[in-house]
Amino acid sequence: MIDGFPAGLAIDEEPINRELARRQGGYGRGGRQRIETDKVEVMTGIWKGLTLGSPIALQVINRDYKLERLEDLPRPRPGHGDLTGAIKFLGPIRAILERASARETAVRVAAGALAKQLLAEFSIQVYGFVDELGGVAIDRPENVDDVDAMIAKRDESIIYSLNPEQDPQFKELIDKTGKAGDTLGGIVEVRVVGAPFGLGTHAQWERKLDGKLAQAVMAVQAIKGVEIGMGFEAARLPGSQVHDPIHYDPMEQESTNLGYTRPTNNAGGLEAGMTNGQTIVVRAAKKPISTLRKPLESVNLETKEADAASYERSDVCAVSAASVIVESVVAFEIATALVDKFGGDSLEEMKARYQLFMDMARKR
Amino acid sequence: MIDGFPAGLAIDEEPINRELARRQGGYGRGGRQRIETDKVEVMTGIWKGLTLGSPIALQVINRDYKLERLEDLPRPRPGHGDLTGAIKFLGPIRAILERASARETAVRVAAGALAKQLLAEFSIQVYGFVDELGGVAIDRPENVDDVDAMIAKRDESIIYSLNPEQDPQFKELIDKTGKAGDTLGGIVEVRVVGAPFGLGTHAQWERKLDGKLAQAVMAVQAIKGVEIGMGFEAARLPGSQVHDPIHYDPMEQESTNLGYTRPTNNAGGLEAGMTNGQTIVVRAAKKPISTLRKPLESVNLETKEADAASYERSDVCAVSAASVIVESVVAFEIATALVDKFGGDSLEEMKARYQLFMDMARKR
Amino acid sequence: MIDGFPAGLAIDEEPINRELARRQGGYGRGGRQRIETDKVEVMTGIWKGLTLGSPIALQVINRDYKLERLEDLPRPRPGHGDLTGAIKFLGPIRAILERASARETAVRVAAGALAKQLLAEFSIQVYGFVDELGGVAIDRPENVDDVDAMIAKRDESIIYSLNPEQDPQFKELIDKTGKAGDTLGGIVEVRVVGAPFGLGTHAQWERKLDGKLAQAVMAVQAIKGVEIGMGFEAARLPGSQVHDPIHYDPMEQESTNLGYTRPTNNAGGLEAGMTNGQTIVVRAAKKPISTLRKPLESVNLETKEADAASYERSDVCAVSAASVIVESVVAFEIATALVDKFGGDSLEEMKARYQLFMDMARKR
Amino acid sequence: MIDGFPAGLAIDEEPINRELARRQGGYGRGGRQRIETDKVEVMTGIWKGLTLGSPIALQVINRDYKLERLEDLPRPRPGHGDLTGAIKFLGPIRAILERASARETAVRVAAGALAKQLLAEFSIQVYGFVDELGGVAIDRPENVDDVDAMIAKRDESIIYSLNPEQDPQFKELIDKTGKAGDTLGGIVEVRVVGAPFGLGTHAQWERKLDGKLAQAVMAVQAIKGVEIGMGFEAARLPGSQVHDPIHYDPMEQESTNLGYTRPTNNAGGLEAGMTNGQTIVVRAAKKPISTLRKPLESVNLETKEADAASYERSDVCAVSAASVIVESVVAFEIATALVDKFGGDSLEEMKARYQLFMDMARKR
Repeated sequence: MIDGFPAGLAIDEEPINRELARRQGGYGRGGRQRIETDKVEVMTGIWKGLTLGSPIALQVINRDYKLERLEDLPRPRPGHGDLTGAIKFLGPIRAILERASARETAVRVAAGALAKQLLAEFSIQVYGFVDELGGVAIDRPENVDDVDAMIAKRDESIIYSLNPEQDPQFKELIDKTGKAGDTLGGIVEVRVVGAPFGLGTHAQWERKLDGKLAQAVMAVQAIKGVEIGMGFEAARLPGSQVHDPIHYDPMEQESTNLGYTRPTNNAGGLEAGMTNGQTIVVRAAKKPISTLRKPLESVNLETKEADAASYERSDVCAVSAASVIVESVVAFEIATALVDKFGGDSLEEMKARYQLFMDMARKR
Repeated sequence: MIDGFPAGLAIDEEPINRELARRQGGYGRGGRQRIETDKVEVMTGIWKGLTLGSPIALQVINRDYKLERLEDLPRPRPGHGDLTGAIKFLGPIRAILERASARETAVRVAAGALAKQLLAEFSIQVYGFVDELGGVAIDRPENVDDVDAMIAKRDESIIYSLNPEQDPQFKELIDKTGKAGDTLGGIVEVRVVGAPFGLGTHAQWERKLDGKLAQAVMAVQAIKGVEIGMGFEAARLPGSQVHDPIHYDPMEQESTNLGYTRPTNNAGGLEAGMTNGQTIVVRAAKKPISTLRKPLESVNLETKEADAASYERSDVCAVSAASVIVESVVAFEIATALVDKFGGDSLEEMKARYQLFMDMARKR
Repeated sequence: MIDGFPAGLAIDEEPINRELARRQGGYGRGGRQRIETDKVEVMTGIWKGLTLGSPIALQVINRDYKLERLEDLPRPRPGHGDLTGAIKFLGPIRAILERASARETAVRVAAGALAKQLLAEFSIQVYGFVDELGGVAIDRPENVDDVDAMIAKRDESIIYSLNPEQDPQFKELIDKTGKAGDTLGGIVEVRVVGAPFGLGTHAQWERKLDGKLAQAVMAVQAIKGVEIGMGFEAARLPGSQVHDPIHYDPMEQESTNLGYTRPTNNAGGLEAGMTNGQTIVVRAAKKPISTLRKPLESVNLETKEADAASYERSDVCAVSAASVIVESVVAFEIATALVDKFGGDSLEEMKARYQLFMDMARKR
Repeated sequence: MIDGFPAGLAIDEEPINRELARRQGGYGRGGRQRIETDKVEVMTGIWKGLTLGSPIALQVINRDYKLERLEDLPRPRPGHGDLTGAIKFLGPIRAILERASARETAVRVAAGALAKQLLAEFSIQVYGFVDELGGVAIDRPENVDDVDAMIAKRDESIIYSLNPEQDPQFKELIDKTGKAGDTLGGIVEVRVVGAPFGLGTHAQWERKLDGKLAQAVMAVQAIKGVEIGMGFEAARLPGSQVHDPIHYDPMEQESTNLGYTRPTNNAGGLEAGMTNGQTIVVRAAKKPISTLRKPLESVNLETKEADAASYERSDVCAVSAASVIVESVVAFEIATALVDKFGGDSLEEMKARYQLFMDMARKR
């Protein structure tokens, strides 16, 4: 259920379904993903293909859904919400795990895909990729802000990286890990190209865009770290090597930076909680999948006796999927910030306001 | 302005002022901090020393306040909100920087200190320290969850680390950097000992406690990265080395883990957005201070000509202060989560509910 | 989409459907209501008939839905959102009216019916009835807080009043009005019996329960006035005849009033934004249906020429339906206030807390 | 604490203090109001007389403040929050009454006065008056939307009505009631002239402007009823006499109704939760003051013995003050809705957006 979209935006379901399929893919997924093929259904908020300005309900049916027949799990799996949820709610583990499952992210991906359609109207592009997997760094091209080229490259890679040539190495790593009954994590990066100045604000901590991005990303299942721009590396260098000098180039006046160019982008497009006309860069660390085929030590909740954790069908590596999900939640936060700044009940009004602001800002 | 505190909590201003003084300290601060000595004033919400259950207004007067006399800044400072704020609000830089200033964190520290008084009623302790400064890691003791001992150690250190013996090394580094007109960043860690099971929830992404902590911490001025537990390292190891096995020890039934012990705490006390009875561990990367005595390249906003950034009196290193601020915002989020879970209009009722839940959870 | 229900509540769809049918009934409805027979579908948040503590999605399919084929309306209907919506959103009237339609209340009735199932666990009963129709007052029995008896009586009445014997008079009035191409409004009343002390709060205006009830009720389509307790009459009498004296009767200690009886209930159960252990009484004025078969004067939005308003199939009188809707939104607000006060992740914990509070309150 | 004001608005404290003085006045107030003379202090959010776009903190010091010395009340006063608050919070009555006191409205009046300064930039005028007192209706002039003339008239009246000639009658009534130890209530009306089309929305019940106004008004101390436009009377007339026909007059194209004139305004400026370019009309019923010099029956909370309610110094009639408070909260809600619709970080941008929308709407 999404609220706040302006009226009059044409919605196309095909790109939404494409993102849903991407979420299900990536090398290292098990049988579960092969059963389901997610499709979005837009249930309300649309008339003749255009948004109405009222809330939009998206539905992604779980074709694998046979929850009512499933039994409870006796032994909580470390890394999941099994133990803590069962105690918090004083109830069965099954009631926790189905909701805590990353399955829930399907609809967040759908919402992100919708958000990208709004962003496209303002020439804002968002894409994500896998930057490191199982501790192995991945080379990236120089033209990392040429979004169309990068998406083409990423879509060639079985793990959604920007360097398909390294794929065989990761196939081997994943296969080997799977055979050992173990799992892998990794690092994903999302870049937003074309965002204007002034999304977010410095004036209230709850409304700072860096904070909002961090919340949305950290709240994705299995994410344990978030960085903006240079991230932790910024803590290790002196200020003269971290902050991005400000230049002025009249030739770029028409671009989103309004002519204020920056030779570096260590800030990752965000200063004082506001966008600064540069590319927004967000990175996230995903821990390995918590359900191991070779299970971890656990306890039977009834008897309190030590035993291996229960096993539910699972994957070896879902970092590729995480890159889709983090891309989606970032897109959604940016779209929200865009609506916050330019508002307007209709897309027509919102676009006119965007233009109005750009004109005023150029004259400041 | 804080809302949601139960009625009947005795408020002590002294520990609040102590935290305010700590925020102003730490080696590497300039003249600014020496002028002001912050004191909190509780303006409403208290009667005869006890909270009323109504909103509490805290005030920390800025004794250095002469804003009305100050001139605007002509050349935005890279790393600050100067440029982006001036464009977003179509106004003067001065109107941005005074609000964006980390000065605002004084009252967030006061709020955190108040939150710690509520947490203390439930035997929950929170403390923060500097874990790395200018790229130099700092050794830490083994008994890192013995909060009183750690606080004693930290309070001996001029940079608020857990290893005062390394202090001379940092004094030298900071002095050298200051002489070069440069600045330093670092990494801080906050630990919450004694939180019960079940704060936060898995059921809605906006209410997951890991997401809320990430937002609060990333929204602190100059923070560019946030980790929970093992953080980015968790992305690099296989699942079998990341997830924390679950054991059961009847001797610990009375503790907050209810007997469910974990030989490791790589999750940092949070699984599926909920606390799991272990110590909560949050880490944050602070970039170096953005105002350099040897200024960075900038542009005069009127003439668009290249020139050095404007200079406002500033410090060389404020990582120690950041450790106080991050500690404060973490304490505030934990207190909020505690109120969300145990609610109750009065402290008396809240404590009875806490006991009630612990009893029910032990019997689950 | 409902959030905040505790886990472990057994959900029964039958009473929800019964309320949906009641919303569609009442004398004076046209053909529209005869086509559809609403049924609720609980889409998520339930496992084996019990709530999970996660959000609950309810769906009521609009069987009459052929929106895509419908044409736009050229001439806005006075009293509806047609004109103002078309201008606000710079778009077609059709895009407004389908969302503004009282059709949306079907799902609010479903949510209210669900709320009543939670309230029933705490012996709180809610019911609504028509108190005045087309300017004609209706007699009411004395035992108006004997909910089961009153519901039985109301369910006998074709207009959902507490005096079925007056039905023929209203049948005649509605028929006559319908023949004249006109419409009727009326006044509905909702009573909540069994609410404990202390729902809502005095401490923040946004959280006062009287304000929240007023918002929820006024936001129901066609409602133009809201009263609590004596309402406007309270403005006309001296204080000595308005305020409810406080007595104490040890025999009633076990009741929700804890022994503090009030010989009158002019306050309608709410003092200073909090419940006071008495019956909550809310009244609402519904204007007549805005679509008249004998249409009002309007303007063609394209040509700006005067013409009769467009006509969409409609009813003569929907005050009975309004009594169901207002009952539902009141039930929902009371359930929300109950969750706010007693919270708890599971119904089991929530009930234990209710008992705990009652015990502490009796000892105060 | 007010958030959301655009940057660049010039703030004038004098009109704020004038409204604070008005709140303290009106015939029928006791000694309490004579002691205090409220003054606002703008504590933050302003630089050189202009708003910064950051939160604005207003303070109105309670000069009568000696709370710490006051004793608790033994016997709750009917009509106040004394009994219900003491039970809810399991604490003293004193801790409730000082917060529940209408004293809190001083700062809401200040916020409303500030809101009116923003509204004035968009030629929106708000004023309130007493329409009925102690059950006696008051005549009103025809030109009730000529705001300047009406304010002049109202400011002549000792009870803030639009008919100062009736003043002697009310003086006598109030004096007589006061001598009898009793109190009076009344009905106030607030009119908003000049609001554009499209504030509020039909699309979500929580965001409908009629609902928000109802909440804000009902949450004012002692208000028991709220009407919009014709209010309860609309429930008694047929649709043909209630709904306001739509005409078109090209001569009025430049006005806020964009040429769509309505010969009547029974809807009170709100259709489907949105403004329709007409005058917004809100009415509220205030019950008599709850503290009577001739006290009502109550109970000693310790002994449970029947006794007269405790007496705190109080007034005979505060309907005039209520007219100021309701005016203030209505102004605040309208300003909020205006910011929601036209947003913009700076007043300059907000005004340009307002103009942009008016131009687009005229062309629709």
